[in-house]
Amino acid sequence: MLEKAEKSNAILRPHFKTHQSAEIAEWFRSNGVEKCTVSSVSMAHYFAENGWNDITIAFPYNPLEHEKINELASKINLTILLECQESLDHVKKHISSPLDYLLKIEVGSYRAGIDPRNEKLIASLVHQSDDRISYKGFLVHAGHTYGAKGTSNMSWIVEATKKMVLPLKAKFGGIISYGDTPSCSMMSSLPEYDELRPGNFVFYDWMQKNLGSCQQEDIAICLSVPVVASYPERSEIIVYGGAVHLSKDCIEEGNTNTFGKVVMLEENGWGNEIIGNLSRLTQEHGVIKLDKNHFNKVHIGDLLGIIPVHSCLAANLQPYYFSTKGKRIDKINRV
Amino acid sequence: MLEKAEKSNAILRPHFKTHQSAEIAEWFRSNGVEKCTVSSVSMAHYFAENGWNDITIAFPYNPLEHEKINELASKINLTILLECQESLDHVKKHISSPLDYLLKIEVGSYRAGIDPRNEKLIASLVHQSDDRISYKGFLVHAGHTYGAKGTSNMSWIVEATKKMVLPLKAKFGGIISYGDTPSCSMMSSLPEYDELRPGNFVFYDWMQKNLGSCQQEDIAICLSVPVVASYPERSEIIVYGGAVHLSKDCIEEGNTNTFGKVVMLEENGWGNEIIGNLSRLTQEHGVIKLDKNHFNKVHIGDLLGIIPVHSCLAANLQPYYFSTKGKRIDKINRV
Repeated sequence: MLEKAEKSNAILRPHFKTHQSAEIAEWFRSNGVEKCTVSSVSMAHYFAENGWNDITIAFPYNPLEHEKINELASKINLTILLECQESLDHVKKHISSPLDYLLKIEVGSYRAGIDPRNEKLIASLVHQSDDRISYKGFLVHAGHTYGAKGTSNMSWIVEATKKMVLPLKAKFGGIISYGDTPSCSMMSSLPEYDELRPGNFVFYDWMQKNLGSCQQEDIAICLSVPVVASYPERSEIIVYGGAVHLSKDCIEEGNTNTFGKVVMLEENGWGNEIIGNLSRLTQEHGVIKLDKNHFNKVHIGDLLGIIPVHSCLAANLQPYYFSTKGKRIDKINRV
Repeated sequence: MLEKAEKSNAILRPHFKTHQSAEIAEWFRSNGVEKCTVSSVSMAHYFAENGWNDITIAFPYNPLEHEKINELASKINLTILLECQESLDHVKKHISSPLDYLLKIEVGSYRAGIDPRNEKLIASLVHQSDDRISYKGFLVHAGHTYGAKGTSNMSWIVEATKKMVLPLKAKFGGIISYGDTPSCSMMSSLPEYDELRPGNFVFYDWMQKNLGSCQQEDIAICLSVPVVASYPERSEIIVYGGAVHLSKDCIEEGNTNTFGKVVMLEENGWGNEIIGNLSRLTQEHGVIKLDKNHFNKVHIGDLLGIIPVHSCLAANLQPYYFSTKGKRIDKINRV
């Protein structure tokens, strides 16, 4: 991703919401990354405490957290996200430390952001920039690439996004910060943008593999689960691995729901072969169907690996990780 | 639920996996409850440390946790769940402290448990009981009541379950411990059972309300979320309340997906009127559609309430609660 950013003449400002770990963040820093993106004020505080001094909070400004935002802005180079006059008014009134703001532009996922055709609002928000609360550019997240079917559909979304935001940059100046792992992974370069903010790519997951963002061997996260029950008559096993460990993101594959793909654990990692499918999930139970051959190799008390459908949500539920060498890797503590 | 247990001549052994809070557990104790159910060994340790000395772990025995189980069994009256010879062998070999075991019987949810027709296995597991590792009875969880449509379907499941497990009790002795909030809520009494283990009823949620387990006013949990963006053109607002706060359980209502129901917060709780629907959910963003009338009353920086679809998973994601009077209520710390 660093090579792609370089080729695009853009800064890589990875989103750290996927791993939420200061130690993993250091792996980025040791490769020259100095700026990061987070999705909450508490995450910004955590990374600021761990030596990150240029952070973008890529979530709309929350007036109720203005004190914490002000404190952060007094210590680091902080960029926040705005998209309406009310929020800018609140910032001007309640934030005394200098900070930058990006305008979030809605480019088709119909989540957050200003309609790119609303140039009146955009112009007004840009022109209220001053030395203290300073306009920096536009931020887009093409989240609908997660619904793209294949590369041509992906390219179509990427092109449509450019048509929406490049004229805004030409007219109002500033940078364009561009996000989402699928398009950052699948496009060979994105030279139109000044900053790339993919996050999920730190681990990838089965959803990304199915989208074509990565190959299976690029997936760098796996949940280790103990086998606690086994039913020869239905060729199913039960593992201690449920919605409290993986969350409940689910994708359809053929006629089957998939909450995760099952692999064998090996001494320093896990195997390539998908031996089963996590097809049902309740609070703590996971139900896995295996073919006869694998079923006979798996016993109660064994550990299996689950490649998550959505690594961001699965990682969020774990208090720490282990490396494939068995080293504990800490992350943000939610309490 | 206590009245219902009394009327059924059964012990109420509530499942504490929903609240996971020693303080909330005290509310039960002050009403005479002395025994509880949990779904993991770590949860058992937490409640044992908080003065609970009769605990059932209603999850199949995990051989990899035998040391912690043995430690628990040396301190409290511990009941574990077995369902095969391999696990019983492991218990006999690795657990030195006395404990009781229940046999998990599968009654139609096709998750964990012995097929009730497999009397050969049941007889064998019952007859290996001794003074130390002692057979206590059967445990059933009619989890498929969550898929029941209406009271008549619910009654059908309850009756079918009785037909599967009552003959086992008659033949092999011991108790029957019976679970699941929907049927414990909807049946006026369950006199055939010795023990009732509902858990979700401590809070209930929108799924239970739709099933008919409770009325809307029985729901005792609500997630407070700040409004961060507002779009008059599509009558939608964005809140800071996503899959990391609610998990991703979702139910269909008409043509709409529901991840939670939106209410106004009031001084000591929340309003009865459902003002909107949480129809989309990503990691941190929640998207809510409101009618014009309510849309105009809601502003950026306001707090709204979200009644969760599934309180067990939503509560699991929060590090603590606040009572409607503003008092912090701690729960298990996952780290």
